[in-house]
Amino acid sequence: MTTPPSLLSLTIHSAILNLSSISDLSFLPDHIVLHLFLETLRAGKLNERVLKLFVASGKDEVLSLIGAFNIQQIVTPVLPTIHIKDNEVDIVIGAFHSDLTSFMNEWRPVFTRYHLIIVKDPELKEDLEIPDGFDLDIYTVQDINRIVGTSNSIKFSGYSCRYFGYLVSRKKYIISVDDDCAPAKDDKGMLIDIVEQHLLNLSTPATPFFFNTLYDPFRKGADFVRGYPFSLRSGVACSLSCGLWLNLADYDAPTQALKPSLRNTRIVDAVLTIPVGAMLPVSGINIAFDREVVGPALCPALRLAGEGKFRWETMEDIWCGLCVKVTCDHLKLGVKSGQPYVWRNERGNAIESLKKEWEGVKLMEEVVPFFQTLRLPEAAVTAEACFLEIAKAVRDQLGRSNPMFSRVAEAMVEWVEIWKKVGSGPLLGDN
Amino acid sequence: MTTPPSLLSLTIHSAILNLSSISDLSFLPDHIVLHLFLETLRAGKLNERVLKLFVASGKDEVLSLIGAFNIQQIVTPVLPTIHIKDNEVDIVIGAFHSDLTSFMNEWRPVFTRYHLIIVKDPELKEDLEIPDGFDLDIYTVQDINRIVGTSNSIKFSGYSCRYFGYLVSRKKYIISVDDDCAPAKDDKGMLIDIVEQHLLNLSTPATPFFFNTLYDPFRKGADFVRGYPFSLRSGVACSLSCGLWLNLADYDAPTQALKPSLRNTRIVDAVLTIPVGAMLPVSGINIAFDREVVGPALCPALRLAGEGKFRWETMEDIWCGLCVKVTCDHLKLGVKSGQPYVWRNERGNAIESLKKEWEGVKLMEEVVPFFQTLRLPEAAVTAEACFLEIAKAVRDQLGRSNPMFSRVAEAMVEWVEIWKKVGSGPLLGDN
Repeated sequence: MTTPPSLLSLTIHSAILNLSSISDLSFLPDHIVLHLFLETLRAGKLNERVLKLFVASGKDEVLSLIGAFNIQQIVTPVLPTIHIKDNEVDIVIGAFHSDLTSFMNEWRPVFTRYHLIIVKDPELKEDLEIPDGFDLDIYTVQDINRIVGTSNSIKFSGYSCRYFGYLVSRKKYIISVDDDCAPAKDDKGMLIDIVEQHLLNLSTPATPFFFNTLYDPFRKGADFVRGYPFSLRSGVACSLSCGLWLNLADYDAPTQALKPSLRNTRIVDAVLTIPVGAMLPVSGINIAFDREVVGPALCPALRLAGEGKFRWETMEDIWCGLCVKVTCDHLKLGVKSGQPYVWRNERGNAIESLKKEWEGVKLMEEVVPFFQTLRLPEAAVTAEACFLEIAKAVRDQLGRSNPMFSRVAEAMVEWVEIWKKVGSGPLLGDN
Repeated sequence: MTTPPSLLSLTIHSAILNLSSISDLSFLPDHIVLHLFLETLRAGKLNERVLKLFVASGKDEVLSLIGAFNIQQIVTPVLPTIHIKDNEVDIVIGAFHSDLTSFMNEWRPVFTRYHLIIVKDPELKEDLEIPDGFDLDIYTVQDINRIVGTSNSIKFSGYSCRYFGYLVSRKKYIISVDDDCAPAKDDKGMLIDIVEQHLLNLSTPATPFFFNTLYDPFRKGADFVRGYPFSLRSGVACSLSCGLWLNLADYDAPTQALKPSLRNTRIVDAVLTIPVGAMLPVSGINIAFDREVVGPALCPALRLAGEGKFRWETMEDIWCGLCVKVTCDHLKLGVKSGQPYVWRNERGNAIESLKKEWEGVKLMEEVVPFFQTLRLPEAAVTAEACFLEIAKAVRDQLGRSNPMFSRVAEAMVEWVEIWKKVGSGPLLGDN
């Protein structure tokens, strides 16, 4: 037995069919206009004219709903997503191995759509072996010396060589992946396209000012949960996307040494915005960022005395990540972490690295409280300005007890100079 | 072809076999002692005597490693996990339906191990139908009136009735689940035991002071990633565990109304600590908490004028969650969110509820900035004290513009009084 339709529902149904002939809704009771609005949405009948009609009704609840769902002068409500073109993206790869054949071939399905920047580690002597079929530019130590010069405190050797790629790129977005990574597969055995996922992360808003318990509200099938303030639902631009790792995860040398068989086998199918004020260890293995907005804040300023060629022997990316997070928090920009995953292959002997790693481990005890309490002046409204303020605080606060930090501060200041000269406009020395 | 073992590795191997006859390591070079220590761990040969031997060596790196992995006078390193006994747990259920037969039978595999507290919604007229085979106590409006009295500003009707269960429990841990939820199944079709997962969340440390990108570092197969400060790796006690929902998620009425077919079908296999300072919308549908520590901060203080019988018509749990989060942040305690999931069944008509919901939606715009900027005085060192400080700030700051908040503040103060009288010791009126 079905309930017969109410007079109200019949009226609303009829009104939806005749929306084109209605020119005023303001005389109707509030709840009827609200009901009509929702049914209009559901029936897919909202167009520009109809939206104006509802706006003109002046009903508070309808206006709130329009605002809450960010419905603008368009046919259906859409997510505030940016569309990124392939030619707005550079994939930057630091080459620490001369033979990139298998690395490039494994990534071929993902990489061929985009322009690549490969920066050869200045300490690598052999010529690079790179298979055909990619759109790429290769930079070597000669290019580095020609473009940046040799007399400065920034060293582009080892993992730091990729930062030269960030500098010479002229694209809005950078994707960066280590050359010991291969594409991972999802639960259905499908190859994970890291570029697509990173660009999705960067092109949909981030929500750093309130935590959404169902993670990314802009993902298909998700939304903001009850209690999430409507005024915060439009979010902010996302400037940094931090991906994760299957197989060999990014642990430090002590953890690897103590748990030599520890492997990450679990894909957590989520992306989340790291809340404002919360610090995280950004790994440089698999990241993407908006170069135009935060590029100047990514710089290889911190180099450990005994830095080696394995990730667990470096801290430059962790330092960099803390600088970017503080900058994003200050500029009201978002940082996301989670998908996409890459597959990391085995490299190195963690026990051997332990002798070098301790310096980095000890540094973090001083560095993390510094960044957690750092507040930038209101006048700093660009990443450059923020980065220079951070450099000043590093010199004044951390540099006092440890001269290494004075050198870090100096490198940071110098980086901003280099970025101004080299990071925009035509490349110096190019014809 | 295998590489022949080095003299060092043979020596270390031999030393491990003869650890019992070694009485001093201090004369050995640092890196050999470190190597020996790691190999000893790997071989499972670390016992109390051997640990003392390494400690007595005085080698910095070995001592740091022992500290970092929280190795105490025990045979193998263990996670700092608390063991919770079944009789330390109460499962609290607010009964909004008279017939709980199918609800209880579905949960039977999970619930039978524990003591249950069922609080009948005072507005529910019919007698409860509950199948046999459970260890439970039922509380009705007569018990509420007898134990708390009738002349106070706390109302225990609707969803608020469960808070009476929190009050009369004498257990350390509370698990609370709505009566429109059924057990969810994981990806392998296995029933998710929410009690087990909530207790795991509460018994392993939380890490609110730095974000771990691989989520819960205490989960099997996971750890702290590179860059995570060692001094923060022991974490803090977890006081609140917020579970999630499959099928009908905890969206508000506007979201449900605009996306009537939206269902959550995705289990994100993760638990994470919400960073200090970050606020979240705590849903009361599926939570667990340490009653001894934060019990006094969970109270049904905020009741909407038009509050109804559907979750999306209520805000009492969201308010409560903000109070608990601020309290936990102040007391250096953790709040986790993620697993376990419950399956939520369909109920109610979101469009009808929209007429009531707007009050709650509007309130959040004022409430969230208040909690985000609230700082409690150092002198507040218990949940009661924190909760009273929050009440004072609510009255002074929010109550000035909206008399509803003055009533909320009054209810919060009264709740602490009730908790002192009723929430500990023998129950008033009991024999």
